[in-house]
Amino acid sequence: MMSKILNVIVILLMVSGLCSAQSSSEVVEDFKPSSVNQPGKEYPMVNSEGRVRVQISAPEAEKVQLDISAVKYDLVKDENGVWTGESAPQDEGFHYYQLWVDGAAVPDPNSLYFYGASRWGSGIEIPAHDQEFYALKNVPHGEVRELQYFSESNKTMRRCFVYTPPGYDENPEKRYPVLYLQHGGGENETGWSSQGHAGLIMDNLIAEGKSVPFIIVMDNGTWAMPRPPRNREGAERPAQWPPQGWADGFMNTLLKDIIPMIDSKYRTLADPGNRAMAGLSMGGMQTRVITLANPDVFSNVGMFSGGSITMEDIEQHPDFKEKVKLLFISYGSREIENPRPGPWGNPKENTEALKKAGMNTHFYVSPETAHEWQTWRRSLYQFAPLLFKN
Amino acid sequence: MMSKILNVIVILLMVSGLCSAQSSSEVVEDFKPSSVNQPGKEYPMVNSEGRVRVQISAPEAEKVQLDISAVKYDLVKDENGVWTGESAPQDEGFHYYQLWVDGAAVPDPNSLYFYGASRWGSGIEIPAHDQEFYALKNVPHGEVRELQYFSESNKTMRRCFVYTPPGYDENPEKRYPVLYLQHGGGENETGWSSQGHAGLIMDNLIAEGKSVPFIIVMDNGTWAMPRPPRNREGAERPAQWPPQGWADGFMNTLLKDIIPMIDSKYRTLADPGNRAMAGLSMGGMQTRVITLANPDVFSNVGMFSGGSITMEDIEQHPDFKEKVKLLFISYGSREIENPRPGPWGNPKENTEALKKAGMNTHFYVSPETAHEWQTWRRSLYQFAPLLFKN
Repeated sequence: MMSKILNVIVILLMVSGLCSAQSSSEVVEDFKPSSVNQPGKEYPMVNSEGRVRVQISAPEAEKVQLDISAVKYDLVKDENGVWTGESAPQDEGFHYYQLWVDGAAVPDPNSLYFYGASRWGSGIEIPAHDQEFYALKNVPHGEVRELQYFSESNKTMRRCFVYTPPGYDENPEKRYPVLYLQHGGGENETGWSSQGHAGLIMDNLIAEGKSVPFIIVMDNGTWAMPRPPRNREGAERPAQWPPQGWADGFMNTLLKDIIPMIDSKYRTLADPGNRAMAGLSMGGMQTRVITLANPDVFSNVGMFSGGSITMEDIEQHPDFKEKVKLLFISYGSREIENPRPGPWGNPKENTEALKKAGMNTHFYVSPETAHEWQTWRRSLYQFAPLLFKN
Repeated sequence: MMSKILNVIVILLMVSGLCSAQSSSEVVEDFKPSSVNQPGKEYPMVNSEGRVRVQISAPEAEKVQLDISAVKYDLVKDENGVWTGESAPQDEGFHYYQLWVDGAAVPDPNSLYFYGASRWGSGIEIPAHDQEFYALKNVPHGEVRELQYFSESNKTMRRCFVYTPPGYDENPEKRYPVLYLQHGGGENETGWSSQGHAGLIMDNLIAEGKSVPFIIVMDNGTWAMPRPPRNREGAERPAQWPPQGWADGFMNTLLKDIIPMIDSKYRTLADPGNRAMAGLSMGGMQTRVITLANPDVFSNVGMFSGGSITMEDIEQHPDFKEKVKLLFISYGSREIENPRPGPWGNPKENTEALKKAGMNTHFYVSPETAHEWQTWRRSLYQFAPLLFKN
């Protein structure tokens, strides 16, 4: 009897030794469950290096992979048909990922789900050194309100989320500035309040007295948009980019439906000095087109990983330079180190040129992050304290 | 050339004929995309019989199944590695489901996700003959507000959703009654406003003048709960069920944290006559225990597929009979036709006995639905107009 038990222990030790050798001998074994796991789920896990380890039972499968940051990692099957494996170290912050089971791309059944890459799918949180600024704390909290409204421009019902700051209900005479805050391509109106933690970032900033309280409107800016041409060596630069008209659809909806609805339904300060627009990636490009064309509507502008404003833009839109009180441009450091050349040249140089020309501009680089949510969380954290101070 | 094209057409017709023969020759081919698909997704689909057809690409898989209403259906693989297949006809309304890919249980990557069966997973909507009552219409809409708050009882942050009716913000002097509305076991605070459509049901009822406007609080009632004993032939009935104390955890949180927080944060009518509690399944059982013990707190009570109140209960809690102004009990017809015997006897007879004894009771049966969300949507639709009329 004792020898049988010893045999089993020896076999278990061998198997576990084999498994860890197969995945990688250098992996630091201090994995903890991800903070965005489904309730009660042990996996996925993250270690101190930022590696993501997933596990899924698939007894009849031949091949299972973890697909994160555009790399696929083979998992290893144990004797019970349970597959386990981990990725290379990931950047701090939030990443979308998925699993492949014998050729089927599926969400990890253990993670919470987020809308990005044009689908609801798995997400993972790599603990960040600065995660306190978006942590859920026992401070006064605002509300995130889900709102259904009829759009006359589109003749359809639409949905948006509205963050009202702490104290909004308790101060029925007080009016507030408004930030219109847009998601990126392949994302939707849930992004900023879910994986973006916009509400928690504001609650914490307001609790520390670092930002004035304001309303944030998060609507759906998805609109047919052509791909920008790559500015390759020798490729001809388009005379105008984005092409005339691509942002008109969302611009119409924003100006004709969303802003009047918000100004009638909420206690807003409905003047341009108390109205801001910002967005990430595609939302930044929309912010660029819409605010250049409407400096009478928005006086505070933010573009996160979504281009910049050039001196040529200002020459074409002199009112923008005169009326906009704050222009904030940001990128992740990995976007700046390995810049994807865009049609707007060097965003840092552009922004410095505008400052020299007399505009109140700010340029921020998120350390060691790419075109991902940690860049945009930090961008909002830097941007919000600058808002509505003029 | 023409003969080659004809050959291809003949082969295509044969293949399509084979496929449909393999799935079932009786399937009505009028499938339409489900209303809860992810944006831009064609599958899953539903036909006029209520069959669910799913499709997933899994070129290397050996076996793929659709798992819905506790039955697994084999899918069929085409030459491109795409698997397709459908279920037997399903009841009207909402159902959770999942896919199996070579032994891995995963969400369908094409559907929206909902929390139930203790996990975020796929859901499907079978169009119902009465779906207008929870349809999104161009009527005045309330808001569903996500709220983070600190619970002194639990020393932790908690989250709830609060429905405020249309006009709440526009009438800053008006105060409203409150319904505390609980989800079922394995569900959470998102259930009633997501798959339950509580907000849309109320918006439509209020627009038609069928219900007074009131606030709904949807919190998380998940709490360690023992399984009730089955009341089998010959099995001894427990002297007391549920056992003393199982609902105390959520009862404490509700009475000490949630209600005071709601009464301070929202413009409530904070008297028992304007306070209701209801819930589905486990939430109904919690409603039963909590309202029997606290008739000074709640005067309107609803239990949806979650037991009933007996004459013995009333004898033990005479205040309940005296103070509760409305008692509403409901079930799906398939639960009543094939009753799972519970410790509370026949809910219809119990409810009629209370009516004879002088209580204002209502008993509702949802036609041709089981222990599922269509039963509970209809229950709220029947319950809400009865509330706060005394």
